[in-house]
Amino acid sequence: MDSNQSDRRRFLKQASATVAVGAAGFVAGAQLPAKAQQAESQPAGTDEHVHRVPPRRGARYSLDHMTHYTPLQDYAGIITPAPLHFMQQHSSEYPEIDPKEHRLTIHGLVDRPLVFSMDDLKRLPSVSRIHFVECHGNSSPAIHASRDPKMGLPVQFIHGMASTSEWAGVPLSVLLNEAGLKKNGTWLVLEGADAGKFSHTLPVGKALDDCFVAYGQNGEPLRVEQGFPIRLLVPGWEGPFNVKYLRHIKVVDEPYNTWNESMNHSVSRPDLGGKARWYHFQWAAKSVITRPSAGMEMRKGYVQITGLAWSGAGKVSKVEVSTDGGKNWREARLDGPVVPKAHTRFNYDWEWNGQEAMIQSRCIDETGDVQPSMAELAEHWGYTMADWQKPEKPRAIHMNAIQPWKINRDGSISDAMFA
Amino acid sequence: MDSNQSDRRRFLKQASATVAVGAAGFVAGAQLPAKAQQAESQPAGTDEHVHRVPPRRGARYSLDHMTHYTPLQDYAGIITPAPLHFMQQHSSEYPEIDPKEHRLTIHGLVDRPLVFSMDDLKRLPSVSRIHFVECHGNSSPAIHASRDPKMGLPVQFIHGMASTSEWAGVPLSVLLNEAGLKKNGTWLVLEGADAGKFSHTLPVGKALDDCFVAYGQNGEPLRVEQGFPIRLLVPGWEGPFNVKYLRHIKVVDEPYNTWNESMNHSVSRPDLGGKARWYHFQWAAKSVITRPSAGMEMRKGYVQITGLAWSGAGKVSKVEVSTDGGKNWREARLDGPVVPKAHTRFNYDWEWNGQEAMIQSRCIDETGDVQPSMAELAEHWGYTMADWQKPEKPRAIHMNAIQPWKINRDGSISDAMFA
Repeated sequence: MDSNQSDRRRFLKQASATVAVGAAGFVAGAQLPAKAQQAESQPAGTDEHVHRVPPRRGARYSLDHMTHYTPLQDYAGIITPAPLHFMQQHSSEYPEIDPKEHRLTIHGLVDRPLVFSMDDLKRLPSVSRIHFVECHGNSSPAIHASRDPKMGLPVQFIHGMASTSEWAGVPLSVLLNEAGLKKNGTWLVLEGADAGKFSHTLPVGKALDDCFVAYGQNGEPLRVEQGFPIRLLVPGWEGPFNVKYLRHIKVVDEPYNTWNESMNHSVSRPDLGGKARWYHFQWAAKSVITRPSAGMEMRKGYVQITGLAWSGAGKVSKVEVSTDGGKNWREARLDGPVVPKAHTRFNYDWEWNGQEAMIQSRCIDETGDVQPSMAELAEHWGYTMADWQKPEKPRAIHMNAIQPWKINRDGSISDAMFA
Repeated sequence: MDSNQSDRRRFLKQASATVAVGAAGFVAGAQLPAKAQQAESQPAGTDEHVHRVPPRRGARYSLDHMTHYTPLQDYAGIITPAPLHFMQQHSSEYPEIDPKEHRLTIHGLVDRPLVFSMDDLKRLPSVSRIHFVECHGNSSPAIHASRDPKMGLPVQFIHGMASTSEWAGVPLSVLLNEAGLKKNGTWLVLEGADAGKFSHTLPVGKALDDCFVAYGQNGEPLRVEQGFPIRLLVPGWEGPFNVKYLRHIKVVDEPYNTWNESMNHSVSRPDLGGKARWYHFQWAAKSVITRPSAGMEMRKGYVQITGLAWSGAGKVSKVEVSTDGGKNWREARLDGPVVPKAHTRFNYDWEWNGQEAMIQSRCIDETGDVQPSMAELAEHWGYTMADWQKPEKPRAIHMNAIQPWKINRDGSISDAMFA
């Protein structure tokens, strides 16, 4: 029995001899999904330019008008409903893109520059993967600056720029191999079709590994705030790599410092004479207890501690929970499927006795990486904890510190990160 | 390091000594999810009785007004968006249930009859699982009776009463153990709060294994057509077990024949003198090519064959595809996570040469079960293929036959099940 388990490169070698893009086999009606079958709600535009309403911005969904936070405290499981996926918008308006007119161009150091229509992309081999996407600024020490002097912010606004969806699209390796990478083509510059032309750099090694150009999210077309009609998915790497409204891919021979990378996304290292650590790539082991958490109230007796754990390196292998401020740690139950580079739900049974307590979780991923405390992370970045509590606190992104929640004797719960 | 990986029974032994239902630790704000965080769209009612609009019934979504079919041909991946989940309604209207007033009662052969409010249920340990739900009448030979004499029905209306979601809720074992099963309590009778009081029987062995009372679907509350505020999830078993609007669970000492089971869901066996095979439980290995499929059009060249495979027995271990009417079979690629008792996406690269062809898939699950042809299935049920093509064709449910699609030389595709 012959296997069809060919890797993508072998597939492309076979196909490229006989199939040119645009002449590939075509299945009418294979567009995903047709208007009549779209999830009712506010999905992204269809060919008819309907449903362009952005998600509602409830008081608890947004701190400002261009960032939406996932209400981690409110849902069970790992799938974030598409309209509740976090959103960080870099241009002041959502672009109005007609998918019939949208083109993805691959040029630069390639044998054959190519232009793909949406129809072209949907005819090619597809993948679907459950992955988290997380803003590199999520969980920043800056956000712990509380608007509620007692409780701190709810978990949604500290850690809610991380969400998990099932994304579907075409592997970037398929597209790059169709174009044919030249030997010195080692980096990509990705550019979106939004007004600000949001751009980012990506090494070819990662591009060929597991990245894909996504046109579907949780069984629907992408929503407009998620990059309709296409965005890049760079599994496990920080948010800005996942360029929305993807329009141009230029293959180059060295890393470029795009505007956002150099101006917005660099972090200086005082211990290295102010040099910046240039790129931040893969998210490390991370977790957070989503319930109980700051702003909620406890009653004595049984309580299920629940939360999410994830790692950009692969699968979560273990989550440990401490209810005594980090002295003792016990293993939590991992619930549901444990998917690489995706949120993993954990649960822990506890009995609250009414006394003051400090609860926290830590993630250990399949590479053995252990989620650090904020103090350990500060040291790693060349700061002290005190630095991050100063009014002129330094920029801090790519934070994966353990989040402690303090349970007070009156049943209130507060953010104890800097308590 | 102590593990919190206690099984549920041990958890309950610990907890039952100190925690009575209703006195369990309580986390205010832990309701899932609050109104402001609900997915925009038409989720099921909240406490305020809003959002009670049933899903739109597009021309391609429904054949009649009380059944909705998932548009399998239109989506990638495995997650069915909640509003596109298939729906088979047994009462003529959706019940209007106030979740604050809704109660789940467990009575009969138990030590302590219990009544659970929604708050009670949400305080207890939770699980989240990705599972398919499939109507026992899905893929019935009757439906192949074509409304389009050339093509047959689209895959949506033949096989679209099967969908996959991430469901979240409380294990039925937790509830039953709180109530305390008496020794002779071996079966359950489940009853819904819809007008018709839809009821079904379930053996206790399965109930304690992996069933749960679900209040969430894909990160949202259940939608009204999916059983808001709660439904039972009976993973891998046929649809009617998954009782919606769940209200009463009576523990009994023998299987009951509820009205639907005896009148609607029994299948006579002509080869056994007309006796009925009483219960149908677990779905067997099954798969279907969703694209290309009946009603679509082909063009020569590369085409990705894609589809879904699943089994009520556990994981899909292999999917094979034939493009020559079943003479040769080759292994397809399984895409994304392979989750037990859930849809699994498969892909297969093919080159259509413009000649007549017959494409089909077959699933092999982890128990070794191989999806049968319709002829094999007919024999199993004591019929001949011819019986199922007669106008007075017998009732046929629990169908998992291989679905052949015929590709004609003009590029059209037709249902070849009875061709």
